[in-house]
Amino acid sequence: MSLKIWLKAQQETVDAALDQILPSEDTRPATIHQAMRYSMFAGGKRLRPILCLAAAEACSGEEESALFPACAVEVMHTYSLVHDDLPSMDDDDLRRGRPTSHVVYGEGIAVLTGDALLTEAFTIIAQTPSTESYNARDYVLELSETGGSKKLIGGQVLDLEGEGKELNQEQLVHIHEAKTAALLCSSLRLGGMSANCTAEQLQALTDFGYNLGLAFQVIDDILDVTQTTEQLGKTAGKDESVDKSTYPAILGLEESKAEATRLTTLALDALKPLGEKAARLEQIARHMLEREF
Amino acid sequence: MSLKIWLKAQQETVDAALDQILPSEDTRPATIHQAMRYSMFAGGKRLRPILCLAAAEACSGEEESALFPACAVEVMHTYSLVHDDLPSMDDDDLRRGRPTSHVVYGEGIAVLTGDALLTEAFTIIAQTPSTESYNARDYVLELSETGGSKKLIGGQVLDLEGEGKELNQEQLVHIHEAKTAALLCSSLRLGGMSANCTAEQLQALTDFGYNLGLAFQVIDDILDVTQTTEQLGKTAGKDESVDKSTYPAILGLEESKAEATRLTTLALDALKPLGEKAARLEQIARHMLEREF
Repeated sequence: MSLKIWLKAQQETVDAALDQILPSEDTRPATIHQAMRYSMFAGGKRLRPILCLAAAEACSGEEESALFPACAVEVMHTYSLVHDDLPSMDDDDLRRGRPTSHVVYGEGIAVLTGDALLTEAFTIIAQTPSTESYNARDYVLELSETGGSKKLIGGQVLDLEGEGKELNQEQLVHIHEAKTAALLCSSLRLGGMSANCTAEQLQALTDFGYNLGLAFQVIDDILDVTQTTEQLGKTAGKDESVDKSTYPAILGLEESKAEATRLTTLALDALKPLGEKAARLEQIARHMLEREF
Repeated sequence: MSLKIWLKAQQETVDAALDQILPSEDTRPATIHQAMRYSMFAGGKRLRPILCLAAAEACSGEEESALFPACAVEVMHTYSLVHDDLPSMDDDDLRRGRPTSHVVYGEGIAVLTGDALLTEAFTIIAQTPSTESYNARDYVLELSETGGSKKLIGGQVLDLEGEGKELNQEQLVHIHEAKTAALLCSSLRLGGMSANCTAEQLQALTDFGYNLGLAFQVIDDILDVTQTTEQLGKTAGKDESVDKSTYPAILGLEESKAEATRLTTLALDALKPLGEKAARLEQIARHMLEREF
């Protein structure tokens, strides 16, 4: 099966699982459940859940088990987008070509929608079946530490505080580690854990995820300056307009592309201990570098 | 030991546990960790954790185990206050006599502080030791369902949507069940679960918590009209000024007091299966009715 067809099939699997697991739109109070679904089904490419499922596959796991962490990481990712888009944060009106949550539902409901999705992520992750080596305690701690004040949220704090300042490359890498690489890494780790992976496999997934996550953010920064709003589905040139430090701004465009390639190579090297079963992970990394996700 | 002295000792125990479990103020990025502690150590009376510890005691549990859910429910409660106080929600500048989080740190950081506390609540609850009957999965699901879109967050949605409308008593009870009673109930249930309670004990704690939670909110509504801003530590008369439906507005002051008494009696009746070990829970309920918490 070609990567493109496989990716589409995985997206559909994740969408169906999310549709089943999230409260229906008419659950009381309807406003919040509609708003949760509005942001969850907004044309996301489902990169994090797909990485989770592929990691489980690489460790010979069952898709049925991996769908819990797959949905949980996507729900957590979506909450972070809803809150990051708020007027008091990045103030974005457009996301994936559609008005953002606070534009449609108002700011108060958008805050609560993010809260509800964040809480739901834990309802979902706690239901991941235990394996010989891992249980709900391990899954929840993996997700809560990644989502917490030292990583995902800490990265957004540094990002907010960095606006209008000139950051050096080290500071920028630190923000990207926290804001992007950590959740990509956990998506892979949770997939592996749901498949009862060995310590060696978990390390391989961690190293792959870390480098892939950094590569992803470099590519994201590049696309922000090279693509139009229409291509991106979000406001293009946004980074520059809010005077945000980015890879192209620090390294220049060509050096940034070389850095993305270097990081992708590191990610691919990390996959070696997983052998042939990691073929999809390898394809995803190469695909991401060629275009974006 | 008198109730007053015991309550003070319990508060100190909870404060010490929270101080130990939360990231220190100088953890990177410092802003968010300072803001988390600013709201966590703001003179709260620790009602929910104290109920949790007293429930564990009523089921012959160990304080050491119960301190995890005790801290988790307080951290969750605090996140909900930080977000409820935001300008886009209840727009409160004052809480427990101090400026609210967004006044001190700005709105963006206040949103992230709530997010970080909510996430931290799950890091803490997942560490509760397993018992014969309960494990991390049970603890996390108890907290995530109570904190989720159908209860705690759903209640805030209904509260926002109810402003400026005349609600009837049934609608008001529904908001209070979701916004207040649910987390009080879970505080007690989690304390019981950490003590490996029986199904009968869990039911008793549930019924006690439900009625106590409703009583608490009736008393809160009464105090909003009868006390000054200084006595409350938050803006007095706030409910009326935003045209919010309250018990005194619907039933009148005397009927509201009678309702608080009726609910407290129901709560006390529910404790009977727990026997003498529930003495502290009984005292707390009576104390709450006499004055407030």
